[in-house]
Amino acid sequence: MITVGIVGGTGYTGVELLRLLAQHTEVQIVAITSRGDAGTAVASMFPSLRGRLKLKFEDPASANLRACDVVFFATPNGIAMEQAPALLAAGVRVIDLAADFRISNVAEWSQWYGMQHASPEWVAKAVYGLPEYDRAAIRNAHLVANPGCYPTAVQLGFMPLLEAGLVELDHLVADVKSGVSGAGRKAEIPALFSEAADNFKAYAVPGHRHLPEIRQGLSRIAGGPVGLTFVPHLTPMIRGIHATLYARIKRAADFQALFEERYRREPFVDVLPPGSHPDTRSVRAANICRIAVHRPQGGDVVVVLAVIDNLVKGAAGQAVQNLNIMFGLPEGEGLRQLAVLP
Amino acid sequence: MITVGIVGGTGYTGVELLRLLAQHTEVQIVAITSRGDAGTAVASMFPSLRGRLKLKFEDPASANLRACDVVFFATPNGIAMEQAPALLAAGVRVIDLAADFRISNVAEWSQWYGMQHASPEWVAKAVYGLPEYDRAAIRNAHLVANPGCYPTAVQLGFMPLLEAGLVELDHLVADVKSGVSGAGRKAEIPALFSEAADNFKAYAVPGHRHLPEIRQGLSRIAGGPVGLTFVPHLTPMIRGIHATLYARIKRAADFQALFEERYRREPFVDVLPPGSHPDTRSVRAANICRIAVHRPQGGDVVVVLAVIDNLVKGAAGQAVQNLNIMFGLPEGEGLRQLAVLP
Amino acid sequence: MITVGIVGGTGYTGVELLRLLAQHTEVQIVAITSRGDAGTAVASMFPSLRGRLKLKFEDPASANLRACDVVFFATPNGIAMEQAPALLAAGVRVIDLAADFRISNVAEWSQWYGMQHASPEWVAKAVYGLPEYDRAAIRNAHLVANPGCYPTAVQLGFMPLLEAGLVELDHLVADVKSGVSGAGRKAEIPALFSEAADNFKAYAVPGHRHLPEIRQGLSRIAGGPVGLTFVPHLTPMIRGIHATLYARIKRAADFQALFEERYRREPFVDVLPPGSHPDTRSVRAANICRIAVHRPQGGDVVVVLAVIDNLVKGAAGQAVQNLNIMFGLPEGEGLRQLAVLP
Amino acid sequence: MITVGIVGGTGYTGVELLRLLAQHTEVQIVAITSRGDAGTAVASMFPSLRGRLKLKFEDPASANLRACDVVFFATPNGIAMEQAPALLAAGVRVIDLAADFRISNVAEWSQWYGMQHASPEWVAKAVYGLPEYDRAAIRNAHLVANPGCYPTAVQLGFMPLLEAGLVELDHLVADVKSGVSGAGRKAEIPALFSEAADNFKAYAVPGHRHLPEIRQGLSRIAGGPVGLTFVPHLTPMIRGIHATLYARIKRAADFQALFEERYRREPFVDVLPPGSHPDTRSVRAANICRIAVHRPQGGDVVVVLAVIDNLVKGAAGQAVQNLNIMFGLPEGEGLRQLAVLP
Repeated sequence: MITVGIVGGTGYTGVELLRLLAQHTEVQIVAITSRGDAGTAVASMFPSLRGRLKLKFEDPASANLRACDVVFFATPNGIAMEQAPALLAAGVRVIDLAADFRISNVAEWSQWYGMQHASPEWVAKAVYGLPEYDRAAIRNAHLVANPGCYPTAVQLGFMPLLEAGLVELDHLVADVKSGVSGAGRKAEIPALFSEAADNFKAYAVPGHRHLPEIRQGLSRIAGGPVGLTFVPHLTPMIRGIHATLYARIKRAADFQALFEERYRREPFVDVLPPGSHPDTRSVRAANICRIAVHRPQGGDVVVVLAVIDNLVKGAAGQAVQNLNIMFGLPEGEGLRQLAVLP
Repeated sequence: MITVGIVGGTGYTGVELLRLLAQHTEVQIVAITSRGDAGTAVASMFPSLRGRLKLKFEDPASANLRACDVVFFATPNGIAMEQAPALLAAGVRVIDLAADFRISNVAEWSQWYGMQHASPEWVAKAVYGLPEYDRAAIRNAHLVANPGCYPTAVQLGFMPLLEAGLVELDHLVADVKSGVSGAGRKAEIPALFSEAADNFKAYAVPGHRHLPEIRQGLSRIAGGPVGLTFVPHLTPMIRGIHATLYARIKRAADFQALFEERYRREPFVDVLPPGSHPDTRSVRAANICRIAVHRPQGGDVVVVLAVIDNLVKGAAGQAVQNLNIMFGLPEGEGLRQLAVLP
Repeated sequence: MITVGIVGGTGYTGVELLRLLAQHTEVQIVAITSRGDAGTAVASMFPSLRGRLKLKFEDPASANLRACDVVFFATPNGIAMEQAPALLAAGVRVIDLAADFRISNVAEWSQWYGMQHASPEWVAKAVYGLPEYDRAAIRNAHLVANPGCYPTAVQLGFMPLLEAGLVELDHLVADVKSGVSGAGRKAEIPALFSEAADNFKAYAVPGHRHLPEIRQGLSRIAGGPVGLTFVPHLTPMIRGIHATLYARIKRAADFQALFEERYRREPFVDVLPPGSHPDTRSVRAANICRIAVHRPQGGDVVVVLAVIDNLVKGAAGQAVQNLNIMFGLPEGEGLRQLAVLP
Repeated sequence: MITVGIVGGTGYTGVELLRLLAQHTEVQIVAITSRGDAGTAVASMFPSLRGRLKLKFEDPASANLRACDVVFFATPNGIAMEQAPALLAAGVRVIDLAADFRISNVAEWSQWYGMQHASPEWVAKAVYGLPEYDRAAIRNAHLVANPGCYPTAVQLGFMPLLEAGLVELDHLVADVKSGVSGAGRKAEIPALFSEAADNFKAYAVPGHRHLPEIRQGLSRIAGGPVGLTFVPHLTPMIRGIHATLYARIKRAADFQALFEERYRREPFVDVLPPGSHPDTRSVRAANICRIAVHRPQGGDVVVVLAVIDNLVKGAAGQAVQNLNIMFGLPEGEGLRQLAVLP
């Protein structure tokens, strides 16, 4: 059994990690920390876990995380960069679900996240954890930077086109829609039911923190700089991300075949038949990305539709997938739940 | 492996049965029928099943259901009573998710369901499939009448009180709220998003078809006739039933202890701590009933709150639980998924 | 023109008051206060008001509320009892949308609201503002205690039965469901979209603050003490209250005729035809209560279904109705908007 | 008083037209037709209208529409082209809310709508009814083709940029999201609550019927052909359209000033301050389009966000606005209701 610790388990990625790990046969959760809720039984905060998880939240100061094989950080940005280095030094492997180690350019990171980086040396050593692109590096990684939810959907959607060099790189458009759980379990007015229900809006059009992460990811896939307009939107559903991606065709090809071939052996990317429109509920609560590719009216624009559950393939599920790769387990272990529909 | 057939798999209880059975290690689905969609791949209608279920819908006329160990009917009312007897005669065991065999009094059934009963002799032989009350009889049953969604929640909520004889029987009130999936996957205007969203209403106050089923169930538990007012409501969520039950106290007792004791060994009933309010999402997509019992203001009324997922413990999950009991499998096989929260 | 001030306009009852008053031809809003948002244009916080309301929030200390004919308090509980007396002393009439002046028994109020009452003498002078029962007293009132949302629906639903003495008074049941806006515009986790959407729950079963208000209201209508079980629920919609009311029949009567006669001349209560089920959207954004009365299965229980928009007839609309009565305006002035459906 | 008839009043645009016209002081609805529901009181189908509208649906054959000053067609596509010409010949003015007269190129219309056009001569005489562009022509029009919901939002959003010639015309992108009421009040499975709630999807990416209408509209504004990729999406809300528009900048300018100037005198277009993100609820139930314009990261792409209520400014409200223009009434008559928020 692989022993697992979780730092910061009271948010939505935390409880989702618990849901998945509690159904994983090869791991044992030995500690979960929360500064504010130390002493509280996890299942009393999240009744969905009653009868299946006996743990209590522990104070971070006293939890014996160094005895774990691997520790997940499901914390706000800026925590892992402070606390992970000591664990890493003690030989514990770390998967950070926050953004601390995702951006190679530390100065750029500081600018977008509004703080100095506490551990630039580990930024250089961290492996970006998108299994469909980084699988080999993840296997031996000590520190995995688990991708953001928007970046996962956008990179998986554009990847085959960029790798094959078929589209213009200077004017990519990613119009992406997220469920409200992406905003986290934080008491803030814009995320109230009465604000977000029966409503739709774009936000952060001048610049969203996932922009540099996506741009970095697309650039390394394309092998050169990309021009990207990224507009995130809030849509009144709990889970789900729908990326609608637009690129101008540089060289026509059989896009359907390209996508199918690229993802043929990927267990968690599903290319739909021609003419399809994936809906977010087809991946609800499941660790999978479903993709369709279109060339509307036979024109010179290719449109890709990619959906994920932001809390699973966009966060906790991908983190478990990375754990499986890091420890040589079957990649699907703990991740075989089917989507919940309706 | 137990071989399973499904008659009528295009509705919500059908797709939920597929989701659960596809994750069940001891069964193999060998046939699924649909008159209207014969030839269609199941996964093309329900993309959530892509990659996990290869079956196509077959025409009921040609499907070899007699070779199955057990056949589920996930059909509209009135189908199973026509088709199940031939299968039963051939030694196939049957679990009917519709209402055909739930009401012992055939005349009463005919009145509420508006048709003559085609198989009254099998009504007499059928076993009502509420495991928490009927487990022993289910083991050897050939034909199980799987309880309705409202009746499951109301019976589990009232059961300890009625068995112990602690409440007045003449004025029970069951005020129950259901998600819209309870109305089925039928193209009808009242179930449209634009009709049902951001809206709440009671319906069928003069008399709902589940009334005789609930009354019959409560009467056999209480050992005598009960007076029941049952008001169902439609609430703007997909899944979930919340029963709010009111009874006048005849003899005071430690209701909390009573409920905990009654359900101590039940794997799929969870009694919450005193003062709790179960929410439907704590059972979303999981085969469990969570219950809380209150005595507001220390008065002479006991209030029970019981929640289930109408498609799981209220339909397909309970049907799988019955299958497990019928075939001597561990009762939780295929039913261990945790609730999806948020 | 009647000059109006609003204390505390940043919550949902505040913005709803603004929506209604901005469409009222006989009033002029001259001041609106907010401690935290002084200086902010109201329309920049609530873009729905852009182009129609020029006001800025003012600091309560500097706003000239004494020059108003009437001041609304749309504040948390405990503010009006501190600030209203000075205005009243200056001859300003006051309508309090909070609970400060609703409960005659000051000790009971203190117990439920957890604070000492700052102005018990004004509690005695306040008029409870349910127009259908208190119209005459409202006309000359200096201080109107605008009823709570739950209390409005429950009192209007039970009123004809209690006035006519047709039901047993000792075991009334009010099972009431509210949209999430009833929780106010406060940053609290349980009101987050990801917590409240696709979910249903009861809350405060041991005792909700509206219980004493409802009990007091029903008692004065019935002319004696009543026994009431009140269970509020949270339902995933923005606006709307649905009260399902149960009473044992003491003396049978033509309940339909009784309700129609009682409310025949009420402009804002609509009794539906026999067999109806009002839905909350039929009153969405409108100042009206729609009611249906049933006697299920011809039994000895009467069931009343009453719906209101909690922000309109349950708060701001009723407050404007009270203003109209107080100042001798047509009672429907500013309140003639039709419900928004779908 | 202007006498008004409505053909086909049982859909969502129909009931919205009734809501608005019932609050309009200068018109009288004298007839409303429905083949299937003749004889039914309108208010019994739509209880939101109870007490405010006495009309019954009439059979189209017997309704005296020729006596009306103006007739609205709120019918499925293909009805107005059959029935409007006789009314027009009798001197009745007609506003068609369907698509029959929107596309000048009759052959193109036939291809997209899958039927022969019954009245090509009236296509040539019809005036497209986008007041912000066509006001002068609308004044004297006999037949107004009321724009579609998507086309209204997209044209208003792109209009200032195209008129000023500031953007590349060959690769415009319109990524547009609609509430489910846009699908109409039709009993179809994809519009069921349990299908559309908590879900998000694109649809009709290969080609949506509004594509030729939008392309035609943008081309006449731009004064030449445009290349457009249009992707509509279904979002789980009842009302609202959010258009996210992307264009490559040909010549930089002060876009904010451009938009403000263009719409300064438009009563129903509201340009938000720089940096804003309009949400659909800010126009819920109101006849207004709110717009924000962005130039993300100071790059070479301009992003416009435009929101409308699809049933109001995208259908019934715009139709009433056109009526006001046609009959010389104040343009805002009957359209001054404020948006309902929350």
